[in-house]
Amino acid sequence: MDASTRALSVDRDRLVRRLLALGELGAIEGTTGCARLALTDEDKAGRDLVLTWMTDLGLDIQIDGIGNVVATMPNDSQNAPVMTGSHIDTVATGGRYDGTLGVLAGLEVIESVMAAGVDLRRPLAVGWFTDEEGARFAPDMLGSLVYVGGLSVEDALLIEDSNGVSVGSELERIGYSGPAPIPGRRPHAYVELHIEQGPILEDEGIKIGVVEGVQGISWTEVKLTGQSCHAGTTPMRLRRDPGVVASRVNVFVRELATRFGNSQVATCGVVTQVPNLVNVVPSEVTMTVDLRNTDESLLRKAEAEFHEFLKAAADAENVAVQCRQLARFEPVDFDPRVIETVERQAQGANLSSRRMPSGAGHDAQMFARVCPTGMVFDPSVDGISHNVNEFTHPDDIEAGANVLLRTMLELTETDFS
Amino acid sequence: MDASTRALSVDRDRLVRRLLALGELGAIEGTTGCARLALTDEDKAGRDLVLTWMTDLGLDIQIDGIGNVVATMPNDSQNAPVMTGSHIDTVATGGRYDGTLGVLAGLEVIESVMAAGVDLRRPLAVGWFTDEEGARFAPDMLGSLVYVGGLSVEDALLIEDSNGVSVGSELERIGYSGPAPIPGRRPHAYVELHIEQGPILEDEGIKIGVVEGVQGISWTEVKLTGQSCHAGTTPMRLRRDPGVVASRVNVFVRELATRFGNSQVATCGVVTQVPNLVNVVPSEVTMTVDLRNTDESLLRKAEAEFHEFLKAAADAENVAVQCRQLARFEPVDFDPRVIETVERQAQGANLSSRRMPSGAGHDAQMFARVCPTGMVFDPSVDGISHNVNEFTHPDDIEAGANVLLRTMLELTETDFS
Repeated sequence: MDASTRALSVDRDRLVRRLLALGELGAIEGTTGCARLALTDEDKAGRDLVLTWMTDLGLDIQIDGIGNVVATMPNDSQNAPVMTGSHIDTVATGGRYDGTLGVLAGLEVIESVMAAGVDLRRPLAVGWFTDEEGARFAPDMLGSLVYVGGLSVEDALLIEDSNGVSVGSELERIGYSGPAPIPGRRPHAYVELHIEQGPILEDEGIKIGVVEGVQGISWTEVKLTGQSCHAGTTPMRLRRDPGVVASRVNVFVRELATRFGNSQVATCGVVTQVPNLVNVVPSEVTMTVDLRNTDESLLRKAEAEFHEFLKAAADAENVAVQCRQLARFEPVDFDPRVIETVERQAQGANLSSRRMPSGAGHDAQMFARVCPTGMVFDPSVDGISHNVNEFTHPDDIEAGANVLLRTMLELTETDFS
Repeated sequence: MDASTRALSVDRDRLVRRLLALGELGAIEGTTGCARLALTDEDKAGRDLVLTWMTDLGLDIQIDGIGNVVATMPNDSQNAPVMTGSHIDTVATGGRYDGTLGVLAGLEVIESVMAAGVDLRRPLAVGWFTDEEGARFAPDMLGSLVYVGGLSVEDALLIEDSNGVSVGSELERIGYSGPAPIPGRRPHAYVELHIEQGPILEDEGIKIGVVEGVQGISWTEVKLTGQSCHAGTTPMRLRRDPGVVASRVNVFVRELATRFGNSQVATCGVVTQVPNLVNVVPSEVTMTVDLRNTDESLLRKAEAEFHEFLKAAADAENVAVQCRQLARFEPVDFDPRVIETVERQAQGANLSSRRMPSGAGHDAQMFARVCPTGMVFDPSVDGISHNVNEFTHPDDIEAGANVLLRTMLELTETDFS
């Protein structure tokens, strides 16, 4: 990059203004939160607004059969673009930044670069991908999965929400089924800006997260069946209490996570006890165990230790166990060259940074299957996300968008072969 | 007792027939269970039937202002009676034996003794006491509490169910508010036959439980408040997980009960986690801790250890604690002379027996405040009670009723002064 390119930066006010304007669509009254579940009227309103901004900028807009929208800046070359993007759907009680930041910062990058008249070796593109949240249609990251060829569009269109309404019928209804080819064009590289959705950057006073990959995820639902009995009249030696087994498991996986250290986390988010009465030993407990690690072999070790402990604890209490795997994703490693570029551009802008994994899933992990990929994280105040109180400071938004801009520009010149 | 008195026994078939007939009232369709919540139409139907049997037998029937009914056999003396009794109300999904057995076995004892023309130094009496279950009006054992002067009838009549309907208005409605004095006449002694409602007798193959007293009960509701966060993005060291604290408490009280041994039991019957989602660290957990012991000083020690552990575990996790005492009853000791009488009569009938505490509350514990008191337990199949599958074998019913009969006869001759 020459000096004039290095001096380029985004228009902070325009970006913040667009974030607020998009946040008005599906706004949850009395809060700063949003509800734009995928392919609802609210999602359509959000899509229409962002599409207008893209159209006004004269971008080449491609919509595919799963409703992904990719906008590419004009460019004389036939070269594959450097792409950024994210999603504009939200969970039912979402905020204004999750996903939206990545899409609007990408648009802002393109608008700033176009306004400066910079001549690039390859174009920049920004996309948004359908149903990233998975809050209406499972699995999550559906649009980006289809974009990279991980699921056929035919199968994806048949997926139904909890009311039996299909992706295909909703896409037709809101007018977002387009003719662009699937799988989509392979980008030269992909880099995504997202809020951290966790507390690490804020806790350490760091401005930019350089994301090295996405943690592997293992979700298990455990159903424990014992024998309901009277809490007063049943001696301890005759009890078959699934609640005690669940508690032992919760304590065990907490201690496992502490013992493994590094990126290992463990959570028992669901504990449902039946009949849940003060003077009755429970007959049945359903619990979930969420294990995550950036290292697949350590994640497998954590799973093995958890299952071994579960079996022993249940046997000791004479409680029956049924396990069901709710989700299992291997860790995703981002490209070292993209990671280094993000880190270099943060340092070049005098922004404190740290390498870190993503604990949540993102569209970027789908692109990692087909092209060199990385991510940039902005701090989340109090680590709060998927919540109407989600917030990221305008200073951090500006800083993250500028790191995205400079990373994308550098990547147009990077030869990955 | 002379030889002819010792040869007396109950009519097993008549007793079982009456248990089945009473069980038809409020019967839960498709099961052998009953729903006769206190002072409902079903309870009235049950009362009317038992009253008919008492009237047919020519007993002196007294109904007091809280709806307790006491029937005394004719006797030439002015001496206080040896009383037995229990309750005929049930929980919403009750069985045919809990309470009912004690009332109908008492009636059977009196009918058998009267038929044999035995001349007694003091009369026998059988009572049933209003709202023992507490399933409609709190507290439980309401009628017997009022009978012994533990609560004024005026206060008792004002108690309302969850629909705001009062004890007083329901008693008037079903016609069971009577003029007998409150507190009621102090019996010479009180002994109650009841199903065990637990598994110990069946587990040990023993026919008769000689009840030494009622366990003290300590119920605490614990509300734990931490910080909800993302299960993937929040490192372990930044978590404030109330679910982990609840689990540590559950494991601790289980180990406490095992360590204390003897009659100590401990149960976490309620565990309610919010928001109870697989990938969200809970913000709040409500749990209950039920501790019971026959020894008040040990129960206090258990409570102290539990609270000390709870505070340390919550502090370590930076989780806030709110405790609310839901119930606290000191242990009740029955009279050694009544206990010995029950034991002697079981042995005299060649029935295996063991001394044991009651883990559940019973009307007898109220009478223990005013006269020498004891209880006889019959085995419960699988320890099941407060359940439509509650069952006690006719052989055991007969054996328990005969022990009751002989105990009551011996107590008519016992001088407690």
